[in-house]
Amino acid sequence: MTQLSEEAEVTAALLIIGNEILSGRTKDANLPFLAEKLNGIGVRLREARVVPDIEAEIIDAVNALRARYTYVFTTGGIGPTHDDITSECVAKAFGVALERNPEAVGRLQAHYQTTEINEARLRMANIPAGGILIDNPVSKAPGFQIGNVFVMAGVPMIMQGMLESLLPRLRGGAPMLARTVSCDLAEGTLAEGLGATQGRYPEIEIGSYPYLRNKKYGVSLVLRGTEEARLDEATQAVARLVRDLGGEPSITIGYA
Amino acid sequence: MTQLSEEAEVTAALLIIGNEILSGRTKDANLPFLAEKLNGIGVRLREARVVPDIEAEIIDAVNALRARYTYVFTTGGIGPTHDDITSECVAKAFGVALERNPEAVGRLQAHYQTTEINEARLRMANIPAGGILIDNPVSKAPGFQIGNVFVMAGVPMIMQGMLESLLPRLRGGAPMLARTVSCDLAEGTLAEGLGATQGRYPEIEIGSYPYLRNKKYGVSLVLRGTEEARLDEATQAVARLVRDLGGEPSITIGYA
Repeated sequence: MTQLSEEAEVTAALLIIGNEILSGRTKDANLPFLAEKLNGIGVRLREARVVPDIEAEIIDAVNALRARYTYVFTTGGIGPTHDDITSECVAKAFGVALERNPEAVGRLQAHYQTTEINEARLRMANIPAGGILIDNPVSKAPGFQIGNVFVMAGVPMIMQGMLESLLPRLRGGAPMLARTVSCDLAEGTLAEGLGATQGRYPEIEIGSYPYLRNKKYGVSLVLRGTEEARLDEATQAVARLVRDLGGEPSITIGYA
Repeated sequence: MTQLSEEAEVTAALLIIGNEILSGRTKDANLPFLAEKLNGIGVRLREARVVPDIEAEIIDAVNALRARYTYVFTTGGIGPTHDDITSECVAKAFGVALERNPEAVGRLQAHYQTTEINEARLRMANIPAGGILIDNPVSKAPGFQIGNVFVMAGVPMIMQGMLESLLPRLRGGAPMLARTVSCDLAEGTLAEGLGATQGRYPEIEIGSYPYLRNKKYGVSLVLRGTEEARLDEATQAVARLVRDLGGEPSITIGYA
């Protein structure tokens, strides 16, 4: 376990909404994308949850997470069909009305031909009272922010566009930097020395991830921290440990 | 939203443990695998959470989930390194001691050469008191079951081996069956009729998932349920709806 300084840490949680994730039908691709963007602006993704399209589950999760983290991001459930219930659940979580937002209606009207506008599509303009729209550069129907909760689409390309457009609203901290030391030693061989190294660098998070690639076992030792000099010092210490144990360390800036 | 009959439903949650998922470094592959296996034996995956390698977070999540679902599966954090703290956290969640398990020690001794056995590797034989081992056909260090919680490795190949070996212990229900109706209509065109169809088949869960493939938009309408005749009837109703709206439905058994 790593003890990081918690002072002034800006944190976030992701709430993934949708039966299709829990059925195994759809593999979530939004968590890694969000995580990387948040690393870059110094916001730490601290938890993720996946819940089904059930009102009480969504409301409970939104309220649990928004009380606990600086920011909450949700993905999924803001389309025009009957199983898209995220917006009304978020309104209920905040105890506000769900209102037809004129600006959102305008964006839909500009995008669709008059004959295509129907009640189902207009549902996508229903936004909790007080919500601030999030631009959707792909298919126009906006997401929204209410309080510290950012509601986005589930389709990765749309989610990515929405996230890019809302990033400037976020207050971040020092970006999280990463280094990876890879080698073909076994985790069990490295464990004692690695634990000692972690003890000497408490502000650096050191993780050990074994892998099997091209039928060869190896381990990626990932170091993360916000102070580059200290991170590089710890990385060199880990590389030395690998060499001392007869391995050949390969260092990558970032993840590997 | 879909109202499914909750009577005698066997439910499960997945707890994914590890900083590497929340940093975006590692993409989880265990959720879809678990979901598919559980669908097959009639256990419904109802929630997933991802938590970091922090003791209090793991303990809280284990206790919240085990109180709520028939089964809880955890992945990650049972290796030999300092960041592997799942077993001690699960012991604390259950309020029992973490003990060196003789059977687990025996399996490690049979697997490793005498010179390779060290304290770090023996940590992998520390199992909460009362835990029942889960076989690891890949790298021998076992997982374990305590109460309704099943603790597995995070490396997908090992997790998959462990899951196969524990499946016979689970009590399931009627397998969840799926059908997919794909077409190139827009969701907003389908929404009204789809909602009406969902209303007529309340025991079938109907989800609508738009996609962009080869630069063409389309939508997959996924139907899930446990009664095959009724599922096929609902599938035909959805296919008819697509045809009535000028689309060409393509039906797949399972997900598409």
